[in-house]
Amino acid sequence: MTTQTHSSYGFGTIVPLPFDEAIARVTEALKAEGFGVLTSIDVKATMKNKLNVDFDKYIILGACNPLLAHRALTLEPDVGLLLPCNVVIREVPGSGEQPQTRIDIADPVAMLGIVQQPQMKDLANEAKARLQRVIASLPSA
Amino acid sequence: MTTQTHSSYGFGTIVPLPFDEAIARVTEALKAEGFGVLTSIDVKATMKNKLNVDFDKYIILGACNPLLAHRALTLEPDVGLLLPCNVVIREVPGSGEQPQTRIDIADPVAMLGIVQQPQMKDLANEAKARLQRVIASLPSA
Repeated sequence: MTTQTHSSYGFGTIVPLPFDEAIARVTEALKAEGFGVLTSIDVKATMKNKLNVDFDKYIILGACNPLLAHRALTLEPDVGLLLPCNVVIREVPGSGEQPQTRIDIADPVAMLGIVQQPQMKDLANEAKARLQRVIASLPSA
Repeated sequence: MTTQTHSSYGFGTIVPLPFDEAIARVTEALKAEGFGVLTSIDVKATMKNKLNVDFDKYIILGACNPLLAHRALTLEPDVGLLLPCNVVIREVPGSGEQPQTRIDIADPVAMLGIVQQPQMKDLANEAKARLQRVIASLPSA
């Protein structure tokens, strides 16, 4: 069974792994496609610290392929407003004894589509193809 | 003279301050509107380290207002793909003896407009109003 997920601005999958293991696996898979993880936001911890609100495990990684980012910034210096590429990792509630984790990646074609720059399209397509391979390389729940 | 800057996905200004001072000032101004800085990417250092390429001083801050983020995530759990709100700070080349720094903020209305969720619109408008006050509070070059 495939468990790929889609929205108008992202794509992803559900993996049969605990949360922390899923983070490690997706970090490796990103690296294989030339993306380093530059930032990490622990949303659960931030919500607890700032608002004293309970939230499911939820982390936002900022992934960047330096070669693609350099090309994008050279084409359009403002594009830093849309970088890096977000990867959201969250626990699937109630997955119980067989933990499941959902991984979604922001769609570079949707994100960079905001830039009205025709050459950005090719670059966004290349980034998307790489990130789709990241998702395809992960185990399926 | 006003020096406000605009694009289809951001707005900003040029301040008559050196780069590091501009970072400190915008961080304070964000705080006054309830936005903490959760991440910081030094693009110049990343380009030098990863590609051995020289780049102007350029930093991407990830700013987050926890109350607004919590409302957004409650409305639409996928919205982490579009958070935090990016603030790009870069040196204005050739500004010489009177250093100038450009500050741009991603427009939450453009960013959250990707989400097809009518209630997200009000939230995006509120975030935008706050971030426009951040820009308006900065000194003008």
